[in-house]
Amino acid sequence: MSISFRNDEPVTFRPIGYVKNDFDEPAAPDQIRAAESQIILAPTLVEGLQGLEVGQQIVVIFHFHRSQGYALRQHPRGDESRPPRGVFALRSPQRPNPIGVTVVDLLAVEGNVLRVRGLDAINGTPVLDLKPA
Amino acid sequence: MSISFRNDEPVTFRPIGYVKNDFDEPAAPDQIRAAESQIILAPTLVEGLQGLEVGQQIVVIFHFHRSQGYALRQHPRGDESRPPRGVFALRSPQRPNPIGVTVVDLLAVEGNVLRVRGLDAINGTPVLDLKPA
Repeated sequence: MSISFRNDEPVTFRPIGYVKNDFDEPAAPDQIRAAESQIILAPTLVEGLQGLEVGQQIVVIFHFHRSQGYALRQHPRGDESRPPRGVFALRSPQRPNPIGVTVVDLLAVEGNVLRVRGLDAINGTPVLDLKPA
Repeated sequence: MSISFRNDEPVTFRPIGYVKNDFDEPAAPDQIRAAESQIILAPTLVEGLQGLEVGQQIVVIFHFHRSQGYALRQHPRGDESRPPRGVFALRSPQRPNPIGVTVVDLLAVEGNVLRVRGLDAINGTPVLDLKPA
């Protein structure tokens, strides 16, 4: 990717935690979302969870760490029977910056572990940020 | 921040574009959101916009590039009359990874320029990703 404009310097983030669930390999997003996932937060950051309430929705921002490369136009969900669309009109993991953003239900907070439902990220996915939805 | 767990390697992204609007300095989020902003996309990525439709909502993921440092607990909107809360229960720009996520209305697409309303990012903000809401 060759881009040239103001503020185009690379930005580096460190994961704040990672996803733990039963999906070690990519699977249908709907299938992953239906299951419960845990977000294991770095223990040093636990104080940052104060004020999150069970039952609320939160936004999970994560790194599609298994994604490699991208095309600017892609078949939705890889389904070649559907016409290709621009990557910014899709939620495909194969994107210029492989960032995932998903709204989840917060089921429980137990120390540095958040139990959530609705997350479509596989086991081991690095989490970059959490926000109230 | 000292964290130690699986997949804690730093992640580097390159901006795909930047925000252009009349707010050169931080201002009240509501005030910025009410105004129109442009997202100037890297010209090489224009094909990735195909399929976005005027009138739809999109998610803009951006770098709070002026944010420096953070506290794990903060007064909401810096208002000291309100009790401090955990940073992950706030949308404050001062966070471990200064990533902003905002849903905006897409007003127009003109070449590599998106006109949007509802964005709470100042002029020059690096944009990392766009997705359908």
